[in-house]
Amino acid sequence: MLDRCRAACFSTFGPPAETVAIRVLPLPPPSRGEALVRMHLAPVNPADLNLIEGTYGLKPTLPAYAGLEGVGMVEEVGLGCELRIGDLVRPIDGIGTWRNFAVGSAASFLRLPPLAGSYDLVQAAMLSVNPATAWQILEQANLPRGSWVIQNAAGSNLGRCLIQLARERGLRTINLVRRMEIANELKALGADAVFADTRESARMVAELCGDEAPALALNQVGGESAMTLAKCVAPGATVVTVGALAKQPLSLANGLLIFKDVRFIGFWITRWYAQAAPAAREHLLSQLATLTAEGKLWQPVATTVPLSRITDALAAVNQPCRNGKVLLDCQA
Amino acid sequence: MLDRCRAACFSTFGPPAETVAIRVLPLPPPSRGEALVRMHLAPVNPADLNLIEGTYGLKPTLPAYAGLEGVGMVEEVGLGCELRIGDLVRPIDGIGTWRNFAVGSAASFLRLPPLAGSYDLVQAAMLSVNPATAWQILEQANLPRGSWVIQNAAGSNLGRCLIQLARERGLRTINLVRRMEIANELKALGADAVFADTRESARMVAELCGDEAPALALNQVGGESAMTLAKCVAPGATVVTVGALAKQPLSLANGLLIFKDVRFIGFWITRWYAQAAPAAREHLLSQLATLTAEGKLWQPVATTVPLSRITDALAAVNQPCRNGKVLLDCQA
Repeated sequence: MLDRCRAACFSTFGPPAETVAIRVLPLPPPSRGEALVRMHLAPVNPADLNLIEGTYGLKPTLPAYAGLEGVGMVEEVGLGCELRIGDLVRPIDGIGTWRNFAVGSAASFLRLPPLAGSYDLVQAAMLSVNPATAWQILEQANLPRGSWVIQNAAGSNLGRCLIQLARERGLRTINLVRRMEIANELKALGADAVFADTRESARMVAELCGDEAPALALNQVGGESAMTLAKCVAPGATVVTVGALAKQPLSLANGLLIFKDVRFIGFWITRWYAQAAPAAREHLLSQLATLTAEGKLWQPVATTVPLSRITDALAAVNQPCRNGKVLLDCQA
Repeated sequence: MLDRCRAACFSTFGPPAETVAIRVLPLPPPSRGEALVRMHLAPVNPADLNLIEGTYGLKPTLPAYAGLEGVGMVEEVGLGCELRIGDLVRPIDGIGTWRNFAVGSAASFLRLPPLAGSYDLVQAAMLSVNPATAWQILEQANLPRGSWVIQNAAGSNLGRCLIQLARERGLRTINLVRRMEIANELKALGADAVFADTRESARMVAELCGDEAPALALNQVGGESAMTLAKCVAPGATVVTVGALAKQPLSLANGLLIFKDVRFIGFWITRWYAQAAPAAREHLLSQLATLTAEGKLWQPVATTVPLSRITDALAAVNQPCRNGKVLLDCQA
């Protein structure tokens, strides 16, 4: 009988590889309105690390369950539960995705679109954060076809999603990277230009774009790299910050705001989900699943690690030349 | 015969008091489409100093004429000139306001509303920059009545305009100042709260506003003071930068953008004038002139200095406890 589960927990905020450990916990059967979910795969996203470090926008009550994204399948339902057996779901509301089973109310799961074509469990596990972020930022910017968009950390999964989704909208992307070795990979996804992320790039961007400098920048890095983006964009452009990989604040020359009219805003997909109507959430995820099934949106995986070896997975995240996500196999 | 004029000029970018000098220049009679304007009064605004220092958004060809704002009266017109004798105008387009006479095409002057009631030449000389900036920022924010607005450098003329115009809209203001001695002056203008501009103020603002933290901040300072504003505002708020009195960049914690959803934008009234339809410009200035005539908008003058003593005027700007503008008497 299934009466226990294993979950990645942390009792203090600190370095993930030292702080997170697998615990065995009781697993009650689903009560009225609840579902029992078998977790399959969960990525390690930067947001997961920030949550464990205590630097995320949500600070959970400790001890807490790790893992913000992933995919599971409903295996049992209680009476009156809105979910059906076989539904793909992502646990939300603090349940944690880095676990082998989860029980919770229907409202504590986000329903993901059913699998179709080349949209598989691996892609489903990574559908709701990075592709959704890139999609919403492009949607809100609403740029005319042919416009340039610039981003840093373009080799990240978010960066790769932006390249593919921008191309779908007829936008052109300039991609700043730390390692030029991945330039061809990004071009294969549809990147129009790939430059090294240095101060020099501002000149190359200006040469490339002429009078049509980017009206939108996606900043995942902060610090110096964010300044480079601000130099590259057109007057009146928007710089959207979604991450802080450099762990450095943005330093904004006042003239960029006053005279160049650059607008600095942030985007957090968690807030978007919390504020969006359920129909808008489902619409977004179904568009992303369709693009995935059509082969137009795809995210690489660097390595898949059994959940039981969570510490190895958290070490793998820090590999300097990693390409693609570290995924956890939650059943192993 | 009037064939010469005197104008404040600068041939290099540098410290204003060392760089600006009065020169005697030829004054041709107005040709077709042109007007001859007798300048009366012109303020010394921070933007004037930045223009001379070479740190402004417009970098004039040298040698250049100083003075961005002021009031003159049309004294003669050429054939086909749209301006009429007696019109109040502000020279724009690089003519410079720190001069005793100016000749230029009708398009090189901004027409100011005619005088009425308590709206006098002194107030007219200061109408088009600070009051217009405060007005447009409040107009674009479009906050519901009763909302809190916060600003730093509240004792500046721009700060005082914001207090008065916010009050007219039923908004409440929190005013951060370096010198608490001016608190009563600001309260007399309608300020709801005045605090010292220190990190401590964030706690006091939180106590004052409870659940209704400011949705709008006006930043004239940059640096640490801008950070204090960002701490005080509500999630989703906008911080509008219009100046950089501290001559320090803004340093933005990434979490302010991503998790708190604070938006950092700039405002530059020069750009607004350049982009606005003539009817919108006239509407704005006429509203401000009406409020001034009704005694609802008023700016203090610290001292009026003859144009011939421009160096003294530029020294007076740096007086540490100055309250109100330094004005130039252009005919003296």
